[in-house]
Order: sequence, then C-alpha cells, then structure tokens
Amino acid sequence: MNDAVTRETLIHRLQDALGADAVLSDEPDTAGYTEDWRGRYRGEALCVVLPSSTAQVSEVVKLCAAAGVPILPQGGNTSLCGGAVPPAQGPSPVILNLARMRHIRQIDAANGSMIVEAGCILKTVQDAAADVGRLYPISLGAEGSCQIGGTLSTNAGGTGVLRYGNTRENVLGLEVVLADGTVWEGLRALRKDNTGIDLKHLFVGAEGTLGIITAAAIKLHPLPTCHSLAWFAPRDPAAARQVLGMFQNACGSRLSAFEIMNRYQLDMVLANVPNRRNPLAGAHDWHVLVELGDTRDAEGLEAVLTETLGEAIEQGLVEDAVIAANETQRADLWEVRHSVSEANKKAAVGLTTDCAVPVSSVPEFIDAATRAVHAVVPGLDIAIVGHMGDGNVHFIPMFSFAAWSSLPDSASMGDTMRACVNDVAARLSGTFSAEHGVGQTGLPLMQRYKAPAELALMRTVKAALDPNQLFNPGRLVP
Amino acid sequence: MNDAVTRETLIHRLQDALGADAVLSDEPDTAGYTEDWRGRYRGEALCVVLPSSTAQVSEVVKLCAAAGVPILPQGGNTSLCGGAVPPAQGPSPVILNLARMRHIRQIDAANGSMIVEAGCILKTVQDAAADVGRLYPISLGAEGSCQIGGTLSTNAGGTGVLRYGNTRENVLGLEVVLADGTVWEGLRALRKDNTGIDLKHLFVGAEGTLGIITAAAIKLHPLPTCHSLAWFAPRDPAAARQVLGMFQNACGSRLSAFEIMNRYQLDMVLANVPNRRNPLAGAHDWHVLVELGDTRDAEGLEAVLTETLGEAIEQGLVEDAVIAANETQRADLWEVRHSVSEANKKAAVGLTTDCAVPVSSVPEFIDAATRAVHAVVPGLDIAIVGHMGDGNVHFIPMFSFAAWSSLPDSASMGDTMRACVNDVAARLSGTFSAEHGVGQTGLPLMQRYKAPAELALMRTVKAALDPNQLFNPGRLVP
Repeated sequence: MNDAVTRETLIHRLQDALGADAVLSDEPDTAGYTEDWRGRYRGEALCVVLPSSTAQVSEVVKLCAAAGVPILPQGGNTSLCGGAVPPAQGPSPVILNLARMRHIRQIDAANGSMIVEAGCILKTVQDAAADVGRLYPISLGAEGSCQIGGTLSTNAGGTGVLRYGNTRENVLGLEVVLADGTVWEGLRALRKDNTGIDLKHLFVGAEGTLGIITAAAIKLHPLPTCHSLAWFAPRDPAAARQVLGMFQNACGSRLSAFEIMNRYQLDMVLANVPNRRNPLAGAHDWHVLVELGDTRDAEGLEAVLTETLGEAIEQGLVEDAVIAANETQRADLWEVRHSVSEANKKAAVGLTTDCAVPVSSVPEFIDAATRAVHAVVPGLDIAIVGHMGDGNVHFIPMFSFAAWSSLPDSASMGDTMRACVNDVAARLSGTFSAEHGVGQTGLPLMQRYKAPAELALMRTVKAALDPNQLFNPGRLVP
Repeated sequence: MNDAVTRETLIHRLQDALGADAVLSDEPDTAGYTEDWRGRYRGEALCVVLPSSTAQVSEVVKLCAAAGVPILPQGGNTSLCGGAVPPAQGPSPVILNLARMRHIRQIDAANGSMIVEAGCILKTVQDAAADVGRLYPISLGAEGSCQIGGTLSTNAGGTGVLRYGNTRENVLGLEVVLADGTVWEGLRALRKDNTGIDLKHLFVGAEGTLGIITAAAIKLHPLPTCHSLAWFAPRDPAAARQVLGMFQNACGSRLSAFEIMNRYQLDMVLANVPNRRNPLAGAHDWHVLVELGDTRDAEGLEAVLTETLGEAIEQGLVEDAVIAANETQRADLWEVRHSVSEANKKAAVGLTTDCAVPVSSVPEFIDAATRAVHAVVPGLDIAIVGHMGDGNVHFIPMFSFAAWSSLPDSASMGDTMRACVNDVAARLSGTFSAEHGVGQTGLPLMQRYKAPAELALMRTVKAALDPNQLFNPGRLVP
C-alpha cells in the first residue's frame, strides 16, 4: 500500500464507487471469502468488494492501482488448490468477487453461443443452454456453486473433456478489465476470426494474474438426447487402454466418458457412502464407466456399446460388464463415480494428485507411480480414479487417520508422496496439474517441473500485462 | 542493419552456421521465396536460409539479432494476403524457410497425437494420420504444398472447421525459437494441462511476429469411415440457416460441412471450368452442399440425411435436392465447390473478402452487403461462397475485365467495395478476416476495425516478446 493511502481511505473510496453494501470489511462478513471451502487455506483480505457491472470492476481496479493494493479476483471459491483465497502471508489484497455480475446477456441458439457475465453459476449456464435445446458441455462436481468466471480463469476440466475439450476450447470471446482499468471488449461470438494475436487465451487459465474476466462468449453444442452407459471390469489398465481405442474407432465422437477406478477406490465408496452398490457381481481389480451420447438413434447407441463390449470380452480384455437398462440405473452408476471425493474424505487421509500423461502411457504411469510410492511406504493403500480418456489420473496415496497422525513429520511425508507421483508423470512427458490448476499448492511444483525458458516467458508476459503486480501477485508463476 | 555488419558478412556467417547450400542469395534462386504464388506481392530479401534443425533456426536467430537484420519466417508461401513474402518497402529481411525441417517425430495413435516439424506438408501429415487409422482434420485448397508451420502461424481454417475447429483447436503443444534464440520446448501432447499461462496460443495465428514455430504436437481424431453428401437449393439464405439448425439438432457432430453459394457463383463454375455439371435440374438462386461423416452405420447416415432434407422440403425451405449415390458422385459435387477459385479467376476481377459473422446473422450480412455494394455500383455481379456452418462468407463483388480496366481508379474502387462489405460485417459483430489472416492486405483494416484497447494490448505483447522487432517487423499489428 502506498504510504499516502490508509486502509480506511481506500475502503471509503470503494464505498463511494460501489455503494456501502458492496464493500465488506468486517470479519464475520468476509469469512466466507477468505477461507477455502475445505478449510485448508486462509488469508487476510483488506476488504471484499462486490461490483455489479464492468464499469464498477474498472473503478475498483483504478482505485486499488492508485493505492498500491493488490486485487484477488474471486468466483465461487471452489478451488481445490487454494487458488481463490489470499495467501497466509504477504500484503492483504482486496478480494473482488464477481457474484453480482450474473446476467446472461445473450443466447443465440442458431449461432451456438451465449454471452454470460462472470458471476453466473455454471449450473445456471447449463440450464439456460438446455432451455434452447443446446449443451454447454463443461460439467464438474462444483457446478452448483462455481462461477463461470472462475471456470474460465482456471480452464476447468471435469467429465466432458474427452468429447468437448476443456473450458478453453469452449470460449469464443472475453471481456476483461486490464491492470490500468481499461476494458478490453473481446466478446465476439465467432467460430473463425484471424485478426491478430489471440488475446483471450492469455486470460483463460491465468488464474486471475493478468486481468479480470467480467464476461464471456461461450460455445454451445447440439444437445445429445440419448445416452448409453456401461460399467465394466477391464483385466488391467493396459486392457482398459485397448478398450478405449476400440470405442474411439467404433463410436467416434459418440464417446463422451471413459472413467477408470481401482478396486480400493470402489471399496472406499461402498464402505463410506450410503446406498452405493457394487455395479458388478464379483470382485475385480479395475473398473471403467463408459458412456456414449448422441442426438438420435438410442437403439443404435446401445447396439454399438453392446457390440464393442462383447468384442472386448471375447478378446479377454474385459472380465465382466453391465449396461444401464434405464435412466435410473445410469444415474446410479454415475453416483458411484461421483461419490469418490466424499468417500475418500471419510475413509482416510488422501494425498490427492492431478497428473495427466499421454493416454498411451496411463498404464505405465499407474505401474511406475505405484512402485515409487511403495518404495517409500511398502504396501500403502492407493486410490486411483481418473478421466482415462484424457490421460488424467488422480493417483491418491491413502494413510489411515491413525497412521497419519502418528507420523513424525506428516507435511514432509505428503511432499515426498506427491513428488513420487509427479516425478513419474514428468518422466512420461506429463503434467502435475491436469485440471485443478496451480493455486497455492502447485506454486513450488512450477519451479520444480517447468523449464527455465518456459517460466521466463510466463514472467515476461506477466510483467508486460501487469507491470505493477496488481493482480494476484506471487501467484501462478514463481 | 547494424553499421558494423555488411550483407556479405552476415551471409558468410549464415553459410558457416548452416552450410553453403542452405543459404540462397542470388536472384534466380530466391525468386520463388520473394514473390507470392499469385504474383500480387513481391519484396526484396537479404537472403533465404533453409535450416535443417531447431538448433540451426536458433543459430540464424542469434546471428540476425546480432546483425540487426529482421527475419521473415516462411512456410509453403501459399498466403492469400501477402503474409509470406517481404514488404515492397523497408529493410530487406532474411527469409527463414522451414522446408528442410520435415520429419514426423512421433505418431501416437492411442493418444491421438503426432509430433511434426514445421516444414511438413499438410497433406503428408493427413496421410500419416490416416495410415494409423486417425484423422488430422485441417483440410484446405493448398494442402498439397502448404507447410504445417504456416498453417499454425496463420491458424488456418478450411472445410473441416464446422466439426473440428480451426488449426488452433487442433494443437496440443509447440516448440518455438524465441527472439533471443532461446528454444521454448512446449511439445507436450496432453489433453489437459493447467500449469500456468498457455503460451502456445500466443504463437498460433501470430503470423510469425512473436517467434518461429519449429515443431508441433497436434491432435488426431477417430477416422470417419463413411460419408453422406447432398446438394440442395434452399429458398434463400434464411431458409439455409434454418436447415442448418435442423441438421445440427438431428445429426450432432456427424455434420461435417455446410457450404453455401449463390446462383452467380455456380454459373461461373459451370461456364469457366471444364467438366463441371449443374448438380440440380433447374435453376435456383441458392445452393448448399451438406456432408455428414461417421465412424459407423453408413445406412443410418444416409437415412438421417434423407429424412432431414425431406422435412426441409416439406416445410418449404428447400426447392430441390440430390443425394450423392456413390463416392464418384460425392467427389464430383465437391469438385464443383472446389472449382470456385479457378472459375472466378478466369471469369472476372473478383474483390475477395473473408468475413465471418454469427451464423444467425449470415442472411442479414448477405442482404446488407449486397445493398451496400449496389449503392455504389447498381446491379454489380456478386459471387457469394461460404462456409455457412462457421458464419464465414466470401462475399466477392465481380467486375468484368473490361469494366475493371476502364475504371479511372481501380485501386480505390477495390478499397471502397471491400469497405462496404467489411463495414457490414463489423456492424454485425463480425470480422474482416475469418480465415485468411492479416498479412499485407489486412494491415490497414486492423487499424480501421480493431478497438484501440485491443491494438494496444497486442502491441504490449509484441514489445514484450520481440522487443527489438526481429520477427516480421510492422506486420500483424499496425
């Protein structure tokens, strides 16, 4: 903060600009903004502001820039890596939460596009698209509370990536407030536009370090009207990979999900979440949920699912399989998949990782990471759950609560375990963060795994767009 | 050029670094590199270099940077807007052509990825993908001679965009030589990677102004094995738009092309290109080629094409239609579409434009641009041909050779006509360059149509990544 401006002065100026009710400065009011939803990260904020328009966002940026106070842009505060709350140390930022900017400015079904403000809840956007017979394909656990601006700033992934790509692939244009308060109006809803440097991709996935996304033009897709889902037990991850290839060849873009989990992960769900049933009769080491979707021909869809699985069984790749006979069964099987986080939280201390490797290397990744973890703690339980179709595997070493609390230095054990897993991913040309982002958790990993030339290039971009380190200083690029 | 370095000195240094056969400095040898293929743009080069490796590209960059001589990176020299040859005025650059870097470094069918060097011909890449049962979906007229590096640097479009997106959407990672000769190794072939600012999108579509792309990890898709194609006459562009919506709803991602042309454009093809036949019996004002593709079920594909067209005829949206009965007929109908450039070149002087608008606004665009052009020259012929599914319409005012040569100031007429069309696109939230890029043609249009804040942001990025204006100075951003 500049010497000339006190905290109180800045708060008064912000109140003058936005109205008193849009500035929260007292502890009980700000608590929900300064701590993450899992209670793992907490930091102080100078205050929380809730602008209602792009012009107000610009005003806040100018006032904070003049005062030398950093800004932390915030959406639904659903980050899994501490990306949405202030750091425990360092100067307290103004948290700029976009919740009040929640209008849908335009829906154009014929163009397959929608213009939404950053504070729109993801679920609201999905529903508005469905109302005009279109699909906004980004879907993830936090969709009922995360804001579209947060999903853009973190390039959110989820279960639709295999077919529709990440959030980045579903953006046509952006409106962004820059570090000097200028508004970049880039809300073009065009499928093709080759007029200069593509600026929108700078801000998507930049975790709020280069500007504040206030609105976006997003892509809508034809709405699939039928789905067909199976749960099957592949012989092992290599067999699962082969079956994935068979589905890609047979079904093309009908293939919309290919999710894998190991026996331990399924057992944790069955043991810890009420009303979850084992999809298959016997016990199997590996499980896959596969789903097809189409705009027509439900019978053909089930036929190709059945045929492909039949062929895989014949080739000895699949031990057992079940096809959802109706929408209820389909929902039940998805519930098993979606219960993973809840189950693991209850079951033990899970050291979550978020690696991706080339799909062809997923079996080797699982094998090598298991050996690396067991070299440190022989026989340790490991939950494995992943979006196999994207090469994204959450490989989670699990400690019982008792074992964890008896460790002399549990933080260091956590670091060691994650390094075991992330090192294997790096060796296989993979990444330590496929979808969760960098946030606070990943910052030291950026230093460890990124080439100096790549970090230098990112620092160059940051220095050019935000020379005074106004937006999220110290984040994303170490 | 720095005072201390003469042209001869630099050429000697380049010869020492690359070998004498990789440096062309005499007029007859360099002619194919300094003039564009249509003979419309020509400029001087200090010399042409043909490096064989990324290390050699880095060497050239360092030598030119030290000498203060700009570099023009060049692929297959197939630009439609003068983007690949030196300017007529200004300091002569070293042309760095990537033709000798043409290795396919890796194909991974299971991961759906390929790592290719920048000089690979697009057709070679398509064929290599097909050999492993996969599709690289970028397809365009110049595919037999354009280089993949050029398609990346210009974010090439073409006929596959409706289903698969532009080149940008089909890139996973890049290797780039930066302005100080540093090599950024970003060749990750991952579907998901959220670790910092996405640098690859800076270089895709930057037309060689920010760095030199030397290799890329590109996406491969399941290979469609059956196609079904129809040619039909919609009542008007608004009806065509409605039929497009019907196909999107019924066919989802099976829809792979939806190309429109007007009667004048078809007549030009029939009159000027041998062996092209009118697909329909009668005369119609508007024509659409629609194609579906799938990995299975050829019968189902033809059924949905027939059903959807039948419904459109019933609703009075379509006047007549024909379905290709076999591969020969399908190829013939595509030939009609692909003969447009050849026909127009022979027929008259065409003032090509390359606008895109939201798909929903295509009918209004065609209508308003026609009125604008006719307000200047009443009754002027206009060829209209476009990728309607992407909102990309080539709207081409046509002058007979006699009328054109009798104009007192034809250059100014060209500017006026293009401004008529581009102004309409701008009013409809569209763009003056959907797929051709900026090059030399579009530079004044950047100034005219881009908001100052957007140009300023682009200049900031350029200054940060290429502070000494080494790469293509003066291009892309005015």
